[in-house]
Order: sequence, then structure tokens, then C-alpha cells
Amino acid sequence: MKLNVIFSPVQSDELFFTGKTTVVIDVLRASSTIIAALENGAKEVVPVGTIEFAVKVSGGMFGGQTLLGGERNTKKIEGFALGNSPSEYTKEIVSGKTIVFYSTNGSRAIVKAKYSDNLFICSFSNIEALADHLIKLNEDVLILCSGDNNFFSLEDSVCAGKLVKEITGKNSNVILTDSSNAARAMYKTFGKDIKKMLRETEHGQLLVKNGYENDLEFCSRLNGTNVIPVYSGSTLKVLK
Amino acid sequence: MKLNVIFSPVQSDELFFTGKTTVVIDVLRASSTIIAALENGAKEVVPVGTIEFAVKVSGGMFGGQTLLGGERNTKKIEGFALGNSPSEYTKEIVSGKTIVFYSTNGSRAIVKAKYSDNLFICSFSNIEALADHLIKLNEDVLILCSGDNNFFSLEDSVCAGKLVKEITGKNSNVILTDSSNAARAMYKTFGKDIKKMLRETEHGQLLVKNGYENDLEFCSRLNGTNVIPVYSGSTLKVLK
Repeated sequence: MKLNVIFSPVQSDELFFTGKTTVVIDVLRASSTIIAALENGAKEVVPVGTIEFAVKVSGGMFGGQTLLGGERNTKKIEGFALGNSPSEYTKEIVSGKTIVFYSTNGSRAIVKAKYSDNLFICSFSNIEALADHLIKLNEDVLILCSGDNNFFSLEDSVCAGKLVKEITGKNSNVILTDSSNAARAMYKTFGKDIKKMLRETEHGQLLVKNGYENDLEFCSRLNGTNVIPVYSGSTLKVLK
Repeated sequence: MKLNVIFSPVQSDELFFTGKTTVVIDVLRASSTIIAALENGAKEVVPVGTIEFAVKVSGGMFGGQTLLGGERNTKKIEGFALGNSPSEYTKEIVSGKTIVFYSTNGSRAIVKAKYSDNLFICSFSNIEALADHLIKLNEDVLILCSGDNNFFSLEDSVCAGKLVKEITGKNSNVILTDSSNAARAMYKTFGKDIKKMLRETEHGQLLVKNGYENDLEFCSRLNGTNVIPVYSGSTLKVLK
């Protein structure tokens, strides 16, 4: 079992993912939000690569059953019912609903990886559950950090490193690459206090500045949920 | 003074570098080789982005004064006088010569960064000298890791981290980004034994497999030279 990490989606193209088992991470905040939505009973999340496509897709579904959610450069999009704060995705609001979801980095990374054989979403909150599932699956795993507009994002890389550490801790038969080795080292250095780490990253600072400080608390939650979003037929649902 | 690191050239385009102070790193082996060539009296190194262009450029120069050097996927190129082993670039061979140089990752990264205001080449061997110069220059610095065919390379990132550490150790007024912070952490984890680190990277293993183990010794040399290659008018010369 080989674990590889890609620190930015721009480092690969769509066909690169064909046949692979891929894990997409966008700690701040898309993957945390998608997990929260499914945890709170959303029927499914449909990740889309453009805002225009989000509007088009949602128009074709049953009005009352579909919600548009997401953000562009951390801010809510005009005409969208929900932003990208995981705390907005409560039981009352999302239960039974289809969420059409766009975000600057996360949803686009998921769409880019759509040709994967297995495609899962990871945040700090479901790392243990996902690590156990990946060990059972016993395939090589490609961990794709959504990054920040093509650039490196520390929080995604530290989360990738935690997933690597969790898997290598439970399975001695794992091969690491340069990048998965580096990610694990980053978790070791920055992972002791996840909330502090999130506050100090570039994206964390931007969120605090824009009034989303509470989201850092939410997104720093380590483990505690067994919800693993899995991509199939263009939508994300809870892995059964 | 802000230090930023880009882990792969594919994360930016040529115009991104306009007006910037850029440091290009390709530890295995382009930047180590370029420094060795200039240390041993080469008049200049002309980095090129394609093999075809290397042949074209060298044809237009004075035959006896020009040498073609470099590699494609670690191997010497047919018709080229020199490969990409720094030990080939001896005084006897390169003194007074113009070297037209192509390599899979390094020379292409340099060419991509050509619109930089200041463009320097860094390997482990000139880190201290380069750090001192950058501190004097007192500009924001972009450290570009050449990476490995668009992917992450641990040795370049650890070298970038050592440069970050050297500068932050001598200058308390430095702002780090997510990536420069991560690179410094990688140096802390992997930098204790540089030769061992090089042997364990993906590219280091490939070089050993292809018979270039001696190059790892050469490329692991920390400091010891004051040669800083600087790019100007399409060529790299020793910074005076």
C-alpha cells in the first residue's frame, strides 16, 4: 500500500486520477462543511466546478429539495441559500436535502478527481474512520490537498499528514513518497494544537478577518464522526 | 521581508515572477551542477527550456567555446558533451567556456522565472552566501523548487527550508507564509543528515539506481562556496 500526497490540484490533470483511490482534503472549509452536511442528514452533496453550473444544476432539480451552498474567496455567493460555514448546515436546514455545492478550491478539486475509482472526502473530523476504511480497502491512496488558488495550504497538508500517520501507525506495510513523508513531518511539527495551527495559516487569518473565527473551532475537531463522504454518479453520499 | 516557497513550477506562470526576487533550487542536480561549473571557471551557463533550443543556441556560438550539458530524466542527452553530474564540470573542461544547459526540471524552472527582477540559483553548497546576500538586498523573496515533473521534491523543499532557516536566524524581521513555514519544518525534520536524506528521496533513489551515487555526496555538501549564480541577459554568471 503506497500513500502519495499532491499539494495542489494544478499539479495533475483529470485523467491522472483514472482508476485511483483518491482522498480530497479542504479543511478550511469545504471538506469540513460537506461532512457536517451529510452528518446532519443531507441526502447528498453535488460538488460543481463553476458557479454557473451550480445554478444550472439546481434549476433542474425539485425546487424545495435543493439548496445552493458554497463560497467564492471565503464569501457567500449572491443567490445561494448557504455559505461555506459548516455550522450553517444544521439538521433543520439540510435534512433530506440535496446540496449543490461550489467553493473556490474544494469543490473544484473534487470535480477534478472525478475519474477516480474510489473518491472520498476527508477533514480532521473523520480521519480515524477514513484511515480504517482505507486500510481495509488496501489500495494505493492518492491524497489530494485542495490548496489555495493553486498554491500550498498548510492546513490541508497537515491534515494529509495526520491521515498518513494514522494509516502508518496501524499498518506497517506502507510505502511513503517524498510528499507523504513530508506531510507526515508537517503533522508532527504543526499538529499538536490544530486550532492554533488553523489560526496561524494564511487562510485561517483571512477567515478570522472576514468574521468566520467560529469556523476554525468547528474545523479543528479531531475525529468524532464516522461519516465518510464517497463520490458516485456525480454526488457525494455517506459511505455505507 | 517576506519569504515564500513554491513547491512546483506548475503552480505559477511566467508573468507571476515579474518584478520579483526569485531563488531557483534543483538540488539533484541542476543547481548543484550550475554552481560547480561557475566555481570551476565557466564563463557563463545558458539555461534553456527545450533540448531543441539548446542545440540551436549552441550552434550560433563559437564552436570551441561552447559546451552542451544536461540531462533528460537523469540521463545524458545524445550529442551533448556533458551530462548533469556536477563532478563532470571540472576546471579542465569548463574553464572559460559557455555551457548551454538543459535539464528536465531545473533549467526549465529557471527559464520560467526569467522575468524576475533578481534571479539567483541555490543549492546546499551556497546557502550561507546566498542568505547573506538576500538579507542585504532586503526584498521579499520567492523560493522556487524545481520539483519533479510538476510534482513535489523533498530535497528541493528541505534546501528551501534551510535557506529560510538561515535567513530567519540572522534577521528577526521576516514574515513567513504557509509554504516557507512548512519548508523550514521539513529542514528541521530531514536536514540533520543531508546525504542520508538525499539517498532516501525518490529522485535520490533513481540516481543511485542509474549509477550516479557519487553525485549525492557532491550535492549534499553544505556551504563552502561563495558562488551565487545570477541570471542576466539570458545567462547565469557569478554574482560580483
